[in-house]
Amino acid sequence: MKRRLRIFAPATVANLGPGFDVLGLALASPGDVVEAELSDHPGVEIVEITGDNGLLSRDPQRNVAGRSALDVLRRAAAKGAAAAGVRLWLHKQMPLASGLGSSGASSAAGAVATNELLGRPLNQRDVLLSAMEGENAASGSPHADNVAPSVMGGIVLVRSYTPFEVVPLPVPSNLHVSVVHPHCKVSTLEARRLVKARAYSIDEIVPNLGNVGALVAALASGDLALLGRSIQDGLVEPVRAPLIPGFAAVKQAAFDAGALGCSIAGSGPSVFAFASDDTAAQKIGQAMRSAFRSAAGLDSDLYVGTVNTEGARPL
Amino acid sequence: MKRRLRIFAPATVANLGPGFDVLGLALASPGDVVEAELSDHPGVEIVEITGDNGLLSRDPQRNVAGRSALDVLRRAAAKGAAAAGVRLWLHKQMPLASGLGSSGASSAAGAVATNELLGRPLNQRDVLLSAMEGENAASGSPHADNVAPSVMGGIVLVRSYTPFEVVPLPVPSNLHVSVVHPHCKVSTLEARRLVKARAYSIDEIVPNLGNVGALVAALASGDLALLGRSIQDGLVEPVRAPLIPGFAAVKQAAFDAGALGCSIAGSGPSVFAFASDDTAAQKIGQAMRSAFRSAAGLDSDLYVGTVNTEGARPL
Repeated sequence: MKRRLRIFAPATVANLGPGFDVLGLALASPGDVVEAELSDHPGVEIVEITGDNGLLSRDPQRNVAGRSALDVLRRAAAKGAAAAGVRLWLHKQMPLASGLGSSGASSAAGAVATNELLGRPLNQRDVLLSAMEGENAASGSPHADNVAPSVMGGIVLVRSYTPFEVVPLPVPSNLHVSVVHPHCKVSTLEARRLVKARAYSIDEIVPNLGNVGALVAALASGDLALLGRSIQDGLVEPVRAPLIPGFAAVKQAAFDAGALGCSIAGSGPSVFAFASDDTAAQKIGQAMRSAFRSAAGLDSDLYVGTVNTEGARPL
Repeated sequence: MKRRLRIFAPATVANLGPGFDVLGLALASPGDVVEAELSDHPGVEIVEITGDNGLLSRDPQRNVAGRSALDVLRRAAAKGAAAAGVRLWLHKQMPLASGLGSSGASSAAGAVATNELLGRPLNQRDVLLSAMEGENAASGSPHADNVAPSVMGGIVLVRSYTPFEVVPLPVPSNLHVSVVHPHCKVSTLEARRLVKARAYSIDEIVPNLGNVGALVAALASGDLALLGRSIQDGLVEPVRAPLIPGFAAVKQAAFDAGALGCSIAGSGPSVFAFASDDTAAQKIGQAMRSAFRSAAGLDSDLYVGTVNTEGARPL
């Protein structure tokens, strides 16, 4: 009987306010699970997908986990670590199009599972590139701020896409994250199109430069109050907030409940907030849920926890 | 006889590549000196200016040191620490309009000298605000990335202008800076106008966000190679480089001589480079000087040293 691996890859919060396309954070939960086996048939076969309500394609070229697995096979073959193929089972354990990096988690799990199965022929950077290839299949835009923290864990900065370089950032151990996912849809493609259509003056850009720098400084020094103040985004949040019913009320509710900082998770509709302990994070999360209900009539899910510092890992 | 104070305030390199208007670094040399005495005459009298070739006004409203001293008097009076006035002697010991924060150093020296003379009624934040008021008189645009490091020393991030908040960043002790000032003029106002006239797409902005974050991460971890790679600016350098004769050749010469990173100092025409020891910094500086001469026929001055971590200080 063939060895079957199970890999969990965490959901992620990208952008973190000022860091559009360059900052991402791995959550303790939720996340996706990929099971993988070596196969004698060439290429990638997606045997089963659960938890997606039938929305995802089992065609490996059109599925982010399949696409990233194919890219790992290609890179492994180029290194002489050939395998005929792999069979994948994808278990979606988090909402799609939520802003929590659902496609990024599946991409990360597919890439990491395939690399593990082959005996780790690829280094972490190449695994990331394969996972980005998968993510690209979903977003049409190669970005790494979800896949990098999902693969690596922690809080990750993408310094540069060309050449590709990521920088793991220090994670204060008392940093807690509340994420609320309201039951409505925001198209990632549409959310991205709106941002791409904008032109910005240097005066609009400068505050984001200052806040990205301050956010990184705060992570390094463990200054959570400064971290909270640096969650300011004048570039993308104003463009995307109108796509999220009740966003202004939810953000206000988070601050009223003691949030250190609050903004849109990825392209939304999820909203995240930072706190310095679990009690505050729970309270803030419940306040955000209440605000989504009262301001927009939306049910929601709440995820509260510290930062996941392990990244994608075998179960 | 009245007590006369002498305050040295260092030259600075603003922007540091990706951090337009938010990052600045204090140099070991050059810098400006302000002498100050209490006076029975209300307001600020500028008794003498040396080293400016007669270019600067002795009208305190039109002189950055005078303007910042007036602002300190105003803030001190509001705190009940009234003094009639001060007399200032301004000794310019660095080139004007060089990109090295000449007006910022004079502003810092004027503000710090006046505050010291009055027995420090203002805290550092208020001294900075007064120095910004002085700088504003020169640039027409209130920015703090020169005055903050000149007052505080080290490498300083301006997180936000409204509300005003600066963050001192860690300074690796082996970081060395080479700055070459070519003998040509770039108007700060014109250099700023060119940048303000541009509109940027989000794709142009993202690399600067990544590099500002990486620069701060590198300072925190002491990774000078990463620091060097993060000195990338796709927003402002391309707009301002054409104002500096020979810039491309000078930058190439810096890298050929081993520079970790290189960009325009402030609004130019000075160019700075980073190195990890004094020998390399001297070699890189000489290579940049040679390139200014051969590519543009320009003489230049070279300043080499570590980061000034003291800031404005009594002599």
